[in-house]
Amino acid sequence: MLIVMKKQASAEEIRAVCEHIEGLGFRAHPLPGAQRTAIGITGNQGAIDQGSLEELSGVAEVIRVSKPYKLVSRDVKEDDTVIRFPGTNATIGGKNLAIMAGPCSIETREQAFAVAEQIAAAGAQFFRGGAYKPRTSPYAFQGLGEEALKIMAEIRDTFGLRIVSEAIDHETLELVERYADMIQIGARNMQNYSLLREVGRTRKPVLLKRGMAATLEELLMAAEYIMNEGNYEVVLCERGVRTFVDHTRNTLDLSIVPAVQRLSHLPIIVDPSHGTGKRNKVVPLARAAVAVGADGLIVEVHHQPDKALSDGAQSIYPQQFADMVGEVRQIARILHRDVPDGIRVERQTVDLVDADQPVARAR
Amino acid sequence: MLIVMKKQASAEEIRAVCEHIEGLGFRAHPLPGAQRTAIGITGNQGAIDQGSLEELSGVAEVIRVSKPYKLVSRDVKEDDTVIRFPGTNATIGGKNLAIMAGPCSIETREQAFAVAEQIAAAGAQFFRGGAYKPRTSPYAFQGLGEEALKIMAEIRDTFGLRIVSEAIDHETLELVERYADMIQIGARNMQNYSLLREVGRTRKPVLLKRGMAATLEELLMAAEYIMNEGNYEVVLCERGVRTFVDHTRNTLDLSIVPAVQRLSHLPIIVDPSHGTGKRNKVVPLARAAVAVGADGLIVEVHHQPDKALSDGAQSIYPQQFADMVGEVRQIARILHRDVPDGIRVERQTVDLVDADQPVARAR
Amino acid sequence: MLIVMKKQASAEEIRAVCEHIEGLGFRAHPLPGAQRTAIGITGNQGAIDQGSLEELSGVAEVIRVSKPYKLVSRDVKEDDTVIRFPGTNATIGGKNLAIMAGPCSIETREQAFAVAEQIAAAGAQFFRGGAYKPRTSPYAFQGLGEEALKIMAEIRDTFGLRIVSEAIDHETLELVERYADMIQIGARNMQNYSLLREVGRTRKPVLLKRGMAATLEELLMAAEYIMNEGNYEVVLCERGVRTFVDHTRNTLDLSIVPAVQRLSHLPIIVDPSHGTGKRNKVVPLARAAVAVGADGLIVEVHHQPDKALSDGAQSIYPQQFADMVGEVRQIARILHRDVPDGIRVERQTVDLVDADQPVARAR
Amino acid sequence: MLIVMKKQASAEEIRAVCEHIEGLGFRAHPLPGAQRTAIGITGNQGAIDQGSLEELSGVAEVIRVSKPYKLVSRDVKEDDTVIRFPGTNATIGGKNLAIMAGPCSIETREQAFAVAEQIAAAGAQFFRGGAYKPRTSPYAFQGLGEEALKIMAEIRDTFGLRIVSEAIDHETLELVERYADMIQIGARNMQNYSLLREVGRTRKPVLLKRGMAATLEELLMAAEYIMNEGNYEVVLCERGVRTFVDHTRNTLDLSIVPAVQRLSHLPIIVDPSHGTGKRNKVVPLARAAVAVGADGLIVEVHHQPDKALSDGAQSIYPQQFADMVGEVRQIARILHRDVPDGIRVERQTVDLVDADQPVARAR
Repeated sequence: MLIVMKKQASAEEIRAVCEHIEGLGFRAHPLPGAQRTAIGITGNQGAIDQGSLEELSGVAEVIRVSKPYKLVSRDVKEDDTVIRFPGTNATIGGKNLAIMAGPCSIETREQAFAVAEQIAAAGAQFFRGGAYKPRTSPYAFQGLGEEALKIMAEIRDTFGLRIVSEAIDHETLELVERYADMIQIGARNMQNYSLLREVGRTRKPVLLKRGMAATLEELLMAAEYIMNEGNYEVVLCERGVRTFVDHTRNTLDLSIVPAVQRLSHLPIIVDPSHGTGKRNKVVPLARAAVAVGADGLIVEVHHQPDKALSDGAQSIYPQQFADMVGEVRQIARILHRDVPDGIRVERQTVDLVDADQPVARAR
Repeated sequence: MLIVMKKQASAEEIRAVCEHIEGLGFRAHPLPGAQRTAIGITGNQGAIDQGSLEELSGVAEVIRVSKPYKLVSRDVKEDDTVIRFPGTNATIGGKNLAIMAGPCSIETREQAFAVAEQIAAAGAQFFRGGAYKPRTSPYAFQGLGEEALKIMAEIRDTFGLRIVSEAIDHETLELVERYADMIQIGARNMQNYSLLREVGRTRKPVLLKRGMAATLEELLMAAEYIMNEGNYEVVLCERGVRTFVDHTRNTLDLSIVPAVQRLSHLPIIVDPSHGTGKRNKVVPLARAAVAVGADGLIVEVHHQPDKALSDGAQSIYPQQFADMVGEVRQIARILHRDVPDGIRVERQTVDLVDADQPVARAR
Repeated sequence: MLIVMKKQASAEEIRAVCEHIEGLGFRAHPLPGAQRTAIGITGNQGAIDQGSLEELSGVAEVIRVSKPYKLVSRDVKEDDTVIRFPGTNATIGGKNLAIMAGPCSIETREQAFAVAEQIAAAGAQFFRGGAYKPRTSPYAFQGLGEEALKIMAEIRDTFGLRIVSEAIDHETLELVERYADMIQIGARNMQNYSLLREVGRTRKPVLLKRGMAATLEELLMAAEYIMNEGNYEVVLCERGVRTFVDHTRNTLDLSIVPAVQRLSHLPIIVDPSHGTGKRNKVVPLARAAVAVGADGLIVEVHHQPDKALSDGAQSIYPQQFADMVGEVRQIARILHRDVPDGIRVERQTVDLVDADQPVARAR
Repeated sequence: MLIVMKKQASAEEIRAVCEHIEGLGFRAHPLPGAQRTAIGITGNQGAIDQGSLEELSGVAEVIRVSKPYKLVSRDVKEDDTVIRFPGTNATIGGKNLAIMAGPCSIETREQAFAVAEQIAAAGAQFFRGGAYKPRTSPYAFQGLGEEALKIMAEIRDTFGLRIVSEAIDHETLELVERYADMIQIGARNMQNYSLLREVGRTRKPVLLKRGMAATLEELLMAAEYIMNEGNYEVVLCERGVRTFVDHTRNTLDLSIVPAVQRLSHLPIIVDPSHGTGKRNKVVPLARAAVAVGADGLIVEVHHQPDKALSDGAQSIYPQQFADMVGEVRQIARILHRDVPDGIRVERQTVDLVDADQPVARAR
């Protein structure tokens, strides 16, 4: 159920309608639009009386939403969701593409800083790095944990990059929420509904990756779980699905980008690194992702991919990344979008060699 | 790494070897076999000195395990794992097939008892019922929670059935462990490694369902996560994978049964209900599962499938279940296995109508 | 459109109705049932006047068939189709399972006879052998061609086995039709509509294998192409579909067996050899196929699989085949079906050694 | 096996080497490169003596090709294959992208001309139209046959567009070869090896579409079948594969474009119409295909898609096509490629209304 408020409805009226709904045992989700505010109603306590809602002050219309997903739907919110990061010009879902890059796992402070410096210079606004890695084998490297999060917090301070990192359970979610700017829910946890609910109760934007066998509807329903808890800043991410195809690690399904954009107001970005699993295919698919209309990219970059503790084969070199940004910026402009220029932060490069030294500061 | 102890090695020697391994920062997993005990060594702290282990008292041989999975492997434990439920004759992995049945969700005490009575009479040894349901939509029925677990505990007391129920996170795991006899990890959580580790620290047998896009190796590695924490009673379950095929909800991959049995000592059962999603295909595929060599079946049974709150379309009627058990028993005997006869428990059927009355007791 | 004739309708009336339909530019397909004859009407020349058909002598009812497939549908013919081979007791679709076996390719007369003798003794009624092999590589062994067909004709004369062999185009179809008893259309040609039409104009039964990515509807529509040309003796064959699963060569989709049996009167058999691609999985899946209700099996058997020119890894030994027949016979009986005993044909075994000698005759 | 000739080898020497190879019972495939000619050797008659080949006059080197595909491989021919159409500036595989467009089926002369005029003006160099349609149902529209081919021949004469049309068997191949400039082999026939061999004996370029479940290697092997018969002008086409994904008709696998370009010298184009099956996704995926590096596009365009006899839902309007060409031209230039301007041919539009009149001529 969706309540469309009148254009001139006051904040007071909106609040009163929300309280009325909550009083009935449902959840109210005020969703401000360019023209007017809509209020989504969710809950599974049975029917709600449409007529009485229409009589509330400031209400223009009450609409029944027939799709299984409500809050993610364009029926409920027509305008694109744009996620902003206060104090920066980084956005996701707006005119500028969101470019996220970094190593699969944070391995050392030296490695993380070396990559961060180069991706910032090339135009990335987000640094992605794994602190907690969901690995197929219990005996594989599982991430540096909180130490990695601290290194990334330093990277934010040094380079002005926003930090994206994955949470895999209750405990790690608390830590990632504390240190990072955006919380990633990985493909393997896309239907871990407890985790989705919990991340829906945080107040950090969420990067939700598509599961390996998830349909479009399942992806949208996973976002609905998060939004139903009150966190409306969800970014979807296509990262390849599992098929019979054996020339790539996964099959990147770029058609989901226009499909999501038709049905939902949420931004969607693409991960060509997991989507292909092969270094030589990352850049071509990154170009394709921007050309298909994605709102951004998330790419694995490593300064020494052959020594990476995870995903080395699909990590590109910093120089490849810089060239890639140059190409996708041109493609973005054809679609009336853009990629902002990178920022070069001068640091004492000796710090990268001697990891025991204190952290370099931006000057 | 695997240590094979001498046939005549004493319990004392085995304990000493385990302590030595733990002292080196690794985990020791003593695995008693028909002839002698093997001790699996896991951990990711790097290499271990093979030579010094061979010198320990009671050690026959030290073998490097090249497969990515260790504890699940037949290389480490040659004999089939048989899981026993003390105080009952229910087993999984032995000569007798394990037959699990029950409704998708526990809806009411009446419904649960009606189904339980009939499946017990037909030959099931396990009652499966959902208390916590991982549903695609946050607005769908999510299960009765602890109330459902209490109803199932009554069912155990009344009918002697062992209880299997799904845990979906830390909190529900504690409750399921308390009330149930076997903890199910669902397909959507097969790669929720935090949950796998946590269930690995319980002391109840685990039913691990294959993920919708999981390979054989990923399924075995998920079991390895559980075993690496010290819980060696893991039962695998094939429940269909996601493919292009559209005449069933999932595609039941029966070939994984002999594939698992070649590589692993763990039992594997089959779920033809989720594997097909259609009532008219459950019984034929149940027969096929037993014929291919599965160690058991888990089947959704509902006395009024058209009124079920979840999965009604794939639930079979109690009479269909009884007929099915009759057929699979005959097939099992061809393969030198068996299904024990059902137990008819007489109860005052009035109890089912008046749920406020105390639980009927078996006489 | 379907015309149901009255029970007492005469052959003359049936013929008159067919002629009337053909006169209108459509095709008439008389389909005798246990109770009465139905006449299917196909063609794409637009609408036909239902009312005038109902007035024809002997017509009981005229029914519009809404499914895209007509002649294959149970709506058009309720009784199971049973295919008989005159002069033998071999049938497909009746009470007895049809057991087909033989080498992937006919390699030498000696090899073919060695296999044929053993499969006949074990209970097969059909000998399958490739004369024309559709191979992924143009440089791989492509089959012995007509020489192979001649060897198989001898095998029929010697052992009384019916011969099944694959045709891959116009030319090979003519030859296979001449020598064999049943014409196989392979998975790669399931949607080679020209070939389907052409085999529909032969008068030999057709074994139609499911394509690697074919849906149930596409399989039925392929059979419809054949039947629309007047050949109603079509046997469907499940042989595995292509999925992400990597522990078998294909994923055997046994659920298609009950799915076909609901919708169609045509028999369906299963090929566990291509369906798994691994010798150690053929027998378990063959048992499962019979348990699920298949009307027969087609299995690759080779007396020296390691020397086979094609598909050696999935060919079973003659002794494995004999054991398999023993097991599936018992399973068949549970389902009120059967597998007839094999026939041991005594031959001078010297013939197998000296291929220049005239063919051994059954005594 | 591959013979690399010396740079200065004469035509006479090349011919002599080829004759020598053929004399040994193998096939010789002279493949001229930018620097020098290579001669591929194929055949399955067993080993060939490498040493004696090295002694032939003009031979620089003899190389064993270990990949299963030979003639399609970059190991055998390093330079990209560029296919030219004499008398036009249309090319496939060179700097300019090949843009192919037209209706799924030729329905009427009026329809075909209406579409052709607009796609030519927009920048297409190729007109694609179905004369023989492989349809899932025998009762669906199967194409106008030779009449369609004649209409397309007129379109070539009127608009200067090169004609691409599908052949489905021996008979239609003869007709398509006579009327069209390029012969399409459809996805359903990608492993119809008889047809591949036959089209390999024609002297028209071949457009080979990837099968719905074909791996990269199978696609390359299908091209190898064609090339082994002496036709080296093969263009590959990605058109989507079949997966569980249900928001598009097929899943367009754009990663195969860079994968093919690494392994093979053959051009590869993309069909976003079949690849998505939905009009609103064709243009975004067309942009993505060019951005990933494809050598061209093949797109279904219809002036009245809602009235189309086949594939209406995935056909775009002429104006959408024109806009699409504008966008992909800009993307192409970023990759240092281009799309030539369209040619506007003035015609008496009355001709389109009165189909009995003689064909309009370009002035």
